[in-house]
Amino acid sequence: MRLATIRTGDTTTAARLIDDTRAVSLNAPDVGALLRDGGFEEGEEFTFSPTDLAPVIPRPGKIICVGLNYAKHIEEMGHKQPDVPTLFIKFPEALIGPYDDAEVPAFNAETLDFEGELAVVVGKRARHVKNGADYIAGYSVINDYTQREYQKRTQQWHQGKSLEKTAGFGPWLDTEWQPGPAITTTLNGEVMQHSLTDDLVFTPAKLIEFISHLYPLEPGDVIATGTPDGVGHARNPKRYLADGDTVRVEIEGLGAIENTTRVM
Amino acid sequence: MRLATIRTGDTTTAARLIDDTRAVSLNAPDVGALLRDGGFEEGEEFTFSPTDLAPVIPRPGKIICVGLNYAKHIEEMGHKQPDVPTLFIKFPEALIGPYDDAEVPAFNAETLDFEGELAVVVGKRARHVKNGADYIAGYSVINDYTQREYQKRTQQWHQGKSLEKTAGFGPWLDTEWQPGPAITTTLNGEVMQHSLTDDLVFTPAKLIEFISHLYPLEPGDVIATGTPDGVGHARNPKRYLADGDTVRVEIEGLGAIENTTRVM
Repeated sequence: MRLATIRTGDTTTAARLIDDTRAVSLNAPDVGALLRDGGFEEGEEFTFSPTDLAPVIPRPGKIICVGLNYAKHIEEMGHKQPDVPTLFIKFPEALIGPYDDAEVPAFNAETLDFEGELAVVVGKRARHVKNGADYIAGYSVINDYTQREYQKRTQQWHQGKSLEKTAGFGPWLDTEWQPGPAITTTLNGEVMQHSLTDDLVFTPAKLIEFISHLYPLEPGDVIATGTPDGVGHARNPKRYLADGDTVRVEIEGLGAIENTTRVM
Repeated sequence: MRLATIRTGDTTTAARLIDDTRAVSLNAPDVGALLRDGGFEEGEEFTFSPTDLAPVIPRPGKIICVGLNYAKHIEEMGHKQPDVPTLFIKFPEALIGPYDDAEVPAFNAETLDFEGELAVVVGKRARHVKNGADYIAGYSVINDYTQREYQKRTQQWHQGKSLEKTAGFGPWLDTEWQPGPAITTTLNGEVMQHSLTDDLVFTPAKLIEFISHLYPLEPGDVIATGTPDGVGHARNPKRYLADGDTVRVEIEGLGAIENTTRVM
């Protein structure tokens, strides 16, 4: 089943997708509320276009990003493989819909980079759990859009990881898809990243188990599971994003997001 | 004026304090909602005890912590003074009331440490602002309670900075107090940290300005402005927190929080 948050006029509705253009509305304003409040009452069928899709969870309580989780990317960034996941935070203000533009003010528009990632969405409260797989609502695609200079100018990456309106997230939540198939990131059609989504050092289930021993995870919380090798910053020459550049992140069998950077 | 979030049975209410034991209820469940929704209607007068105080903003949209913001603490941690603030994130699940116990499960109960801090609370939406002082609702006290091994076992500090139910926050929001007076942290009555709150490299106003150029700040968002020198981890010998240890953080003229660690 695929669940999406779809814009309808000034508001949004959670919806179950029939196909890429038809959906059935559900009794919640978005997929985050649907996961939090439960219930699942179907309403009217309607049609939608890709740009009607909002971030699939518009306001997650937490967006926890994992660094250094693909072996090859760990190598390209010059790090050793860690014993525990590296965690940092992106705020919901960073999210945009799966086909929205990334809107970056000129004063932040240097060293912009993409990180195509598999996102796992938490389905129920997880605290001190040992069976992380039972707490997964499903999977989505996210671009952990990054300002590299800001990421690296202090010891903590956060300030380069949470720029307003930059991180495409969606296109939907797939409740049946399972990790394994390829993730591919393209920049203006050229392949930049390509890996298998089961090449993770820490699996989605393990991440939920690990994090749930630090603090509880709640329905609608999101874990961005890390990016494979091939990011622009690690290329020679480096490939940063400029006004008009389009990044597409596709996960086979799951879906794709495609966002164009606009320098405002 | 002092505003607090006070527990009343199974719920909480925002309140204006008359003194340390008497308050007038306001038309909001907590100070966060009061700042977000505006309005300010007074209800009944009632009495309260210190342990009735909840975290002054129970669920901030963001808790942004600043590392390395007191010159002496920067030195004791072995760092150079940065050109920009170092930012990392604590989640609301970490917060406890100003006189609550910090409840730490045994598996997390190593290398626990205190960081007494001045917290600034945002009063209105701030995006790309140049006059940060205009966006301050007031000040509180926070303990940026830290698990040092977790902080340092990866490159990113977050996982040592957000343990569930550890960070005392309150006792109230003071809308008139101004930075300058001393902050003092004691461990079982012994002074551990003592500094002036205007010894900050980046002032509260500057922090709001800086962060508002990354992403918008919203009413009720909290910035923990950093800790002075004297933390347990930097002492010789090191002084970590154990079951029964009480940490008190007092800021002169603002208020005090006092939390005892309980290993569960």
